[in-house]
Amino acid sequence: MSEMTVQVLEESLGKTVLVRLKGGRSLRGKLKGFDQHLNLVLEDSEDVSDSENIKKLGSIIVRGDNVVIISPPPR
Amino acid sequence: MSEMTVQVLEESLGKTVLVRLKGGRSLRGKLKGFDQHLNLVLEDSEDVSDSENIKKLGSIIVRGDNVVIISPPPR
Amino acid sequence: MSEMTVQVLEESLGKTVLVRLKGGRSLRGKLKGFDQHLNLVLEDSEDVSDSENIKKLGSIIVRGDNVVIISPPPR
Amino acid sequence: MSEMTVQVLEESLGKTVLVRLKGGRSLRGKLKGFDQHLNLVLEDSEDVSDSENIKKLGSIIVRGDNVVIISPPPR
Amino acid sequence: MSEMTVQVLEESLGKTVLVRLKGGRSLRGKLKGFDQHLNLVLEDSEDVSDSENIKKLGSIIVRGDNVVIISPPPR
Amino acid sequence: MSEMTVQVLEESLGKTVLVRLKGGRSLRGKLKGFDQHLNLVLEDSEDVSDSENIKKLGSIIVRGDNVVIISPPPR
Amino acid sequence: MSEMTVQVLEESLGKTVLVRLKGGRSLRGKLKGFDQHLNLVLEDSEDVSDSENIKKLGSIIVRGDNVVIISPPPR
Repeated sequence: MSEMTVQVLEESLGKTVLVRLKGGRSLRGKLKGFDQHLNLVLEDSEDVSDSENIKKLGSIIVRGDNVVIISPPPR
Repeated sequence: MSEMTVQVLEESLGKTVLVRLKGGRSLRGKLKGFDQHLNLVLEDSEDVSDSENIKKLGSIIVRGDNVVIISPPPR
Repeated sequence: MSEMTVQVLEESLGKTVLVRLKGGRSLRGKLKGFDQHLNLVLEDSEDVSDSENIKKLGSIIVRGDNVVIISPPPR
Repeated sequence: MSEMTVQVLEESLGKTVLVRLKGGRSLRGKLKGFDQHLNLVLEDSEDVSDSENIKKLGSIIVRGDNVVIISPPPR
Repeated sequence: MSEMTVQVLEESLGKTVLVRLKGGRSLRGKLKGFDQHLNLVLEDSEDVSDSENIKKLGSIIVRGDNVVIISPPPR
Repeated sequence: MSEMTVQVLEESLGKTVLVRLKGGRSLRGKLKGFDQHLNLVLEDSEDVSDSENIKKLGSIIVRGDNVVIISPPPR
Repeated sequence: MSEMTVQVLEESLGKTVLVRLKGGRSLRGKLKGFDQHLNLVLEDSEDVSDSENIKKLGSIIVRGDNVVIISPPPR
């Protein structure tokens, strides 16, 4: 990963990120860890794909190859 | 994998995890083993894709590239 | 692969396993060999995708990247 | 990556690029970083897939394997 | 590949194998060569996907990543 | 890449190539760079998928894994 | 690649091969080069997917991961 990617992810640790997955699902949760494949550990996560039916997921591991976009929290 | 991912998975060993697969199926079972590809060994596992028709699968190996999300047990 | 995966597969050698493939097909056969990609050699195998129309396949090699789940025999 | 690819991306740093993704979505944002997998960091980004309904995304990381085309700014 | 896979393929050299491909096509031909990716060389091969319309293909190279199952000849 | 592939691409530098992508889109542009993954840099490029509605794309980077065929200019 | 694959491809250099691609398209052309990924250089090539509407493609590079089957010329 570029230094910039690592920096953005490190600055996001402990904060809420939005993750868009292949196939259209979106997750939101507190970023607790990541690696170079963009495998992610999220805490207090939710499936926010359907904004009228948000589902609690709790702590999860997301396999990186499903990730399209990660939105760090606004600074 | 990040240390955090390994830590979360190690803390989940012997406990029940929920695994969401590509294509929409969901599995639940006791985590007995994992590796860096997220290949998983689950015991007493069930296919819980259809909550009204849960199917016993027993002990299974899940090939990691099918995994989207792993939900460890709530702490 | 994790030691646990290898152990489960080694204990299954010579016994009947159920293999679910990407795309929905299921195979059943006696496990004769495996490698770290989950390439499998099955003997006396059958395509059990349609339980009312089981097809004999005999000895087969399954390319590992098609595998979703391997169910070892119950102990 | 070829030297030419790196050069084009480096010249685009800090400028607005258009990124077309697999599956048809298009993003626009200021390029802040990239690596050899074409993982991208974009700032002030927008989803411009539907030109009549542009959605603000803010700062994002795009996983490179989703990228089809990157259009640097016109010189 | 496991020794067992190599052994099964070596014993099949010069004999007729059935190869099922991703997407549903099936080929039959005399196995002339293979490698660890399951790239195959078949001779006197036929497309047997449609049993009422078998098409001669002659000698072919099959790229291994298309292979789902290889059925060696019955012993 | 084979020497022949490199030679064909090098001879095409600065000339107009046609690139067919997975999913059916076609691009045309002046080849400015390439690497071993077939990542391409094209200049003055156009999306020529629909011959009655050609769209200017300008300078672009094409991620190689989307490429099916590259047609160099006729000699 | 197996020696057999290399041998078959080397014997086909300068001769007309038929190439079937993922997604159903078929190409025919004179084989000018290949590498271990089955990237191919074809000369005087044609898209023969629709036998009633054969399209001239001229010299092309085919990215190997699109290849399903290569049929060398009959000996």
